[in-house]
Amino acid sequence: MRIIGIDPGTIVTGIGIIEIEGGNLRLVDTDVILNSSKIPLPERLKKIYDICTLKIKKFTPQEFAIETAFYGKNIQSTLKIGQARGVAIISAANARLNISEYSPREIKQSVSGSGASNKEVVRNFVKKILHIKKNPEYIDSTDALAVAICHYFSMTNYIYSAKTQSKNKSNWKDFIDQNPERIIR
Amino acid sequence: MRIIGIDPGTIVTGIGIIEIEGGNLRLVDTDVILNSSKIPLPERLKKIYDICTLKIKKFTPQEFAIETAFYGKNIQSTLKIGQARGVAIISAANARLNISEYSPREIKQSVSGSGASNKEVVRNFVKKILHIKKNPEYIDSTDALAVAICHYFSMTNYIYSAKTQSKNKSNWKDFIDQNPERIIR
Repeated sequence: MRIIGIDPGTIVTGIGIIEIEGGNLRLVDTDVILNSSKIPLPERLKKIYDICTLKIKKFTPQEFAIETAFYGKNIQSTLKIGQARGVAIISAANARLNISEYSPREIKQSVSGSGASNKEVVRNFVKKILHIKKNPEYIDSTDALAVAICHYFSMTNYIYSAKTQSKNKSNWKDFIDQNPERIIR
Repeated sequence: MRIIGIDPGTIVTGIGIIEIEGGNLRLVDTDVILNSSKIPLPERLKKIYDICTLKIKKFTPQEFAIETAFYGKNIQSTLKIGQARGVAIISAANARLNISEYSPREIKQSVSGSGASNKEVVRNFVKKILHIKKNPEYIDSTDALAVAICHYFSMTNYIYSAKTQSKNKSNWKDFIDQNPERIIR
């Protein structure tokens, strides 16, 4: 299964595509759509639509996940983010993908174990989960990967966190469930 | 020349298409896209995109005009209107139309002569300009026609208003400019 995650913005839109095979997550593609506030809005939206459409065609994900907007920002930037979101969603709807939305808090909680984690903490968890060594040039691309990972974890009801990891280590029931071949019968 | 005007909304989106031939404006099509808040957002956006795309294909306008959002509303409805706007704009960008935006105030000013006119006054001016007799079922469809008319007037720097009309009647210079054949040379 492949999931495309989108972190929408009218200046920088992050794109991340992951693949899940046998419960293992791996990075397929990560990119950003760069725009300038000097370019007229319709052109910026068209660029977002075209690149999202292209990525979906090239990497054939079945699932599409997108970050909901920050409501705390001012009303004019909310309108702009809304436009970018609508355009990204329509590229997925036109390709008949399943579309899901997650709030920034849900994404952080799912990927890093805390809804209050900062961008750097989320990036480090994304790198760990997907075995990425280098820091990406734009943090928006790891944000997009975080959305995709969050969607997979949400589908499987799994929360990746330090807490879960340490809990797994000391919880024999979980350990046995995960390693049935190690039970001496 | 044909102009498509859009008054975007996630529940009701107004569509109006007008034709200008020899300086005369006539109604080509007027419609609304109806959605329900019970339908998931991606489906609503897809409906807006599909119907806008269909109308553009069917009526082949060259120009696309859209109303900008009301900034006075709350932030959540601004986000939703932003999404609907983005989707309508991308349907026009994909068909390579010229895209223009007008604020509600500009539209009212252009069509009715006052930026503070209410919806009914704007509707009556739209009906008068396009020689429409019946009130349309949804006022959103006349709003969309008003956007299209505003775009034409903006292209030709013409303000349709009671003031202009009466001014025209008593202003000989304008009368002569508009009726050069009536000058006795």
